[in-house]
Amino acid sequence: MDRRKLIKFVAGTVAGSCVIGTSRYVAASEESEPAGKFGDGAVVLFQGDSITDAGRDKKNRADRPNDARALGDGYPFVIAGQLLRQHPTKKLKFFNRGSSGNKVPDLQKRWKKDCIEMKPDVLSILVGVNDIWHKMAGRYDGTVEDYRKGFSDLLEQTRAELPKVQLVICEPFALRCGAVEDSWFPEFDERRQVAADVAKDAGAIWVPFQKMFETAIEAGTDPQVWAADGVHPTLAGHALMAETWRQCVGV
Amino acid sequence: MDRRKLIKFVAGTVAGSCVIGTSRYVAASEESEPAGKFGDGAVVLFQGDSITDAGRDKKNRADRPNDARALGDGYPFVIAGQLLRQHPTKKLKFFNRGSSGNKVPDLQKRWKKDCIEMKPDVLSILVGVNDIWHKMAGRYDGTVEDYRKGFSDLLEQTRAELPKVQLVICEPFALRCGAVEDSWFPEFDERRQVAADVAKDAGAIWVPFQKMFETAIEAGTDPQVWAADGVHPTLAGHALMAETWRQCVGV
Repeated sequence: MDRRKLIKFVAGTVAGSCVIGTSRYVAASEESEPAGKFGDGAVVLFQGDSITDAGRDKKNRADRPNDARALGDGYPFVIAGQLLRQHPTKKLKFFNRGSSGNKVPDLQKRWKKDCIEMKPDVLSILVGVNDIWHKMAGRYDGTVEDYRKGFSDLLEQTRAELPKVQLVICEPFALRCGAVEDSWFPEFDERRQVAADVAKDAGAIWVPFQKMFETAIEAGTDPQVWAADGVHPTLAGHALMAETWRQCVGV
Repeated sequence: MDRRKLIKFVAGTVAGSCVIGTSRYVAASEESEPAGKFGDGAVVLFQGDSITDAGRDKKNRADRPNDARALGDGYPFVIAGQLLRQHPTKKLKFFNRGSSGNKVPDLQKRWKKDCIEMKPDVLSILVGVNDIWHKMAGRYDGTVEDYRKGFSDLLEQTRAELPKVQLVICEPFALRCGAVEDSWFPEFDERRQVAADVAKDAGAIWVPFQKMFETAIEAGTDPQVWAADGVHPTLAGHALMAETWRQCVGV
C-alpha cells in the first residue's frame, strides 16, 4: 500500500474537494453559523439510512443528546465524541435519526417530526443507496429523477422552515464488492451526481465519501476493509468518514 | 475555560507523563513490538470493568475482532476505529473483554480464558475503581495491599505466559462528583499509586487518566462533562481517554 498517498489523501485531498454551495442559498448560509464553528448549544442532527443509523437505540434513548447508544456505532458517534472532547464547554447536542432501509420518500414521511421539529443548527444527510438497492431488488420503482425531485423538495422544505440551518450533504457511496452489483452502474453514478447537484443548489457543504473511499482503495487497500458488503462501513470505514466529515465541515 | 490550557494539555502534557516502566521487565519489553508500532496482525486486548466494557455485546459477537458492538461504546471502540483507519493494511485485531463490576479478583478468575488464551500482543488493563467502590458499599473487604498483591500476581502470570506482550496499564480515576464520596480519599489515591507501582514493576506503559481528567477540570470544565457519576465516562470522556491512550502508547 502507498501509505504516503493514503495519508496525503486523508490529510488534504478530500478536504480540498469539499464544496460549499454557492447558489441561491448563500445568503441563508451566511446568516447561519459559519462552517468550522458550531455555536454554543448547537444542535447537530444526523439523518439517513442504515449507514447513519448504525444500530442506534431507537426505543429508549433517542431523545437524549450525546448518548452513546442513541448515536449508534457509526460516523455520527465518532464525530460527536471528537467534537464533545474538543469543545467541552460549548454544550453541543448531537442526535442521530438515521433509520435502516430509508430512501428519500421515507425521510419525507418523517421529516416534520424527525427533523423540522428538532430545530437543528447543523443537519447532515446521507441518503441514496437504498433508492437504487431496493429498486434493483424489485421492491421500489423510483427513478433517478424521482430521487432528484424528492431530495430537492426535502431540502426546499428544510430551508423554508429552518432558514438558518447549516446543511451538510454526504455523497452516497458504493464500493465494488459484496452486495454491490455491476447492474448498479452507471445509474448509481448518476444518482451521486444528483446528490451533488442538489447539495449545491441548497448551499450545502458537500462531503465526498465516494471519492474518499476510491482514493483509499487506489492507495492499495481492499474495499472490504472499509465496507465488507460494499455498502455498510466497517469500524475503519466509519472512522474514515468521520475524519473526512470533520475536515469538510471545518470542525 | 482556558482553552489554550486544555489544548496544550491534550496535545502534550499528558503524553509527557506517560511512563514506560524501566524495571526488571525491560528485557521482555525490548523483545516485544516497540511502543508506537503495532506489528502486522497484532492482537490488541482491552481488559477491565464497566468503564472498558461500555455496554459491549458479550453474547453473540465477543469473538469477532473489530466488531463495533463487541467493542462497546467506550474508549476501546474509539481507539480501534482510529487505528484501523490509520493502518488499513495491517490487519490489526481489537478485542474487548472488560466486564462490568469487575475488581482485580474477578480478572484473576477469568484471566486464563479471557486473556492468556487470547494471546494478545498488546494488553491494556484498567481496573481499580470497583475495588474501592464495592468496599465502601460494604460488598467487598479487599485492602489496598490486596489490590497490590492481586494486580502484581496478575501481571506476573501474564509476563510468565506471554513474555512478549506489550502491557499498557491505565490509571484508575475518580472525579469528585456523582457517586464518588469524600470517604474514598485518601485510600483511592493510595490505590492509584499502587497501580502506578505495579505498572512500573511490570515494564508497562502507564496511561495517567486521573491526571488527564484533573488537568481538563483545572482548565475550566465541569467534571460531569467527562463522567456524569464521577466514574463512568461520557462520550467526551471516552474520546479524551482514547486520545491520551494513543499518545501514551505512541500509536
